[in-house]
Amino acid sequence: MAGVFDNPVLPYFAFYATVVVLKTMAMSFLTSLNRLSKGVFANPEDVGFSPGKGKIAADESIERVRRCHLNDLENVIPFVLVGLLYTASGPSLSSALLHFRIFTGARIFHTIAYLFALPQPSRALGFFVGVIATVSMAYNVLSAAKC
Amino acid sequence: MAGVFDNPVLPYFAFYATVVVLKTMAMSFLTSLNRLSKGVFANPEDVGFSPGKGKIAADESIERVRRCHLNDLENVIPFVLVGLLYTASGPSLSSALLHFRIFTGARIFHTIAYLFALPQPSRALGFFVGVIATVSMAYNVLSAAKC
Amino acid sequence: MAGVFDNPVLPYFAFYATVVVLKTMAMSFLTSLNRLSKGVFANPEDVGFSPGKGKIAADESIERVRRCHLNDLENVIPFVLVGLLYTASGPSLSSALLHFRIFTGARIFHTIAYLFALPQPSRALGFFVGVIATVSMAYNVLSAAKC
Repeated sequence: MAGVFDNPVLPYFAFYATVVVLKTMAMSFLTSLNRLSKGVFANPEDVGFSPGKGKIAADESIERVRRCHLNDLENVIPFVLVGLLYTASGPSLSSALLHFRIFTGARIFHTIAYLFALPQPSRALGFFVGVIATVSMAYNVLSAAKC
Repeated sequence: MAGVFDNPVLPYFAFYATVVVLKTMAMSFLTSLNRLSKGVFANPEDVGFSPGKGKIAADESIERVRRCHLNDLENVIPFVLVGLLYTASGPSLSSALLHFRIFTGARIFHTIAYLFALPQPSRALGFFVGVIATVSMAYNVLSAAKC
Repeated sequence: MAGVFDNPVLPYFAFYATVVVLKTMAMSFLTSLNRLSKGVFANPEDVGFSPGKGKIAADESIERVRRCHLNDLENVIPFVLVGLLYTASGPSLSSALLHFRIFTGARIFHTIAYLFALPQPSRALGFFVGVIATVSMAYNVLSAAKC
């Protein structure tokens, strides 16, 4: 079935892109679990999920997960979009794998650093390494593209 | 012209992906219409759009549309990204249509449940059914992918 | 190397899509630079980046960059997703370039109008022209798609 991906780099891109998108989606569940356990919600109709203690409020640990989720949207989605065009531009497999693996590792590290509030520059490092991987792919795309 | 889509599932994916992206974009217009009718804005330079009553403020019904919009970004974009890789992996048309239609229906229901503040678990149901469709496609992609 | 993009419109789409994604990512850096120069942060562990003056707070000029960034996510990502399906649907090169160039120009103008708080309807104009380009591509995709 993998043979259906006719670009030789695409089956690899599909793996890493799906992993980082699933990681991003996992932030929704972390937010929901936090909301349920603390009884802190954003919508009045949700308050009944935590009988007796549900309320509308802002909670710093929930806002932290939300900020991590938004940072993922700001970085993971550009990686997938640029990565798809980069894959279509015909990179060597070794160069492509280097980009995909560095980005994926950097974002997993970024998430850990964000959620556990590790001392800086941990989170900044995860962020910048991920950005460098995406910008390097973007440079390759622009070199092969036409305007 | 449809023949240009050379993967047999792609013309169907193109339809459902475009519908849910347009649905997401519609949230921007709902926000703008709400801001104009209530005279409640986020930027000082926008206040003049509602002469005599424009002000910088937060309004709960506008924030509700914003939360619905953000929830769409968090769910619709992963669906389109994972769905594109799933389409490239060569699924059967019947299986693919099942995923695309369930997701699209679930997100339209989610939007209605969010905007009209339907009693829970309406919105939660729309959210989870959509997530299950995306995660099921992600599982198929990972099965066909290489790392 | 450009020959690897086998759809004749794809090398052009790759250019404009990458430019607007990089423009969106640049908002992250503008936020970081603003936070560092003002000493205003969202996370306690970041405060030490601005020794002596770092604090947790909200700052209107930083929130303005954040709103511009979120507006980019809400508009640039739909452009790239719909634009990729539009490219796959086999448009004429001249029609495709018109869409890509109008969108890219409109979003660069939107960013300038947002960051410098130009009098309205400058920003509204940039926003609407971009939306029209994306919706026009979506119309073309839906015309070629199957449901």
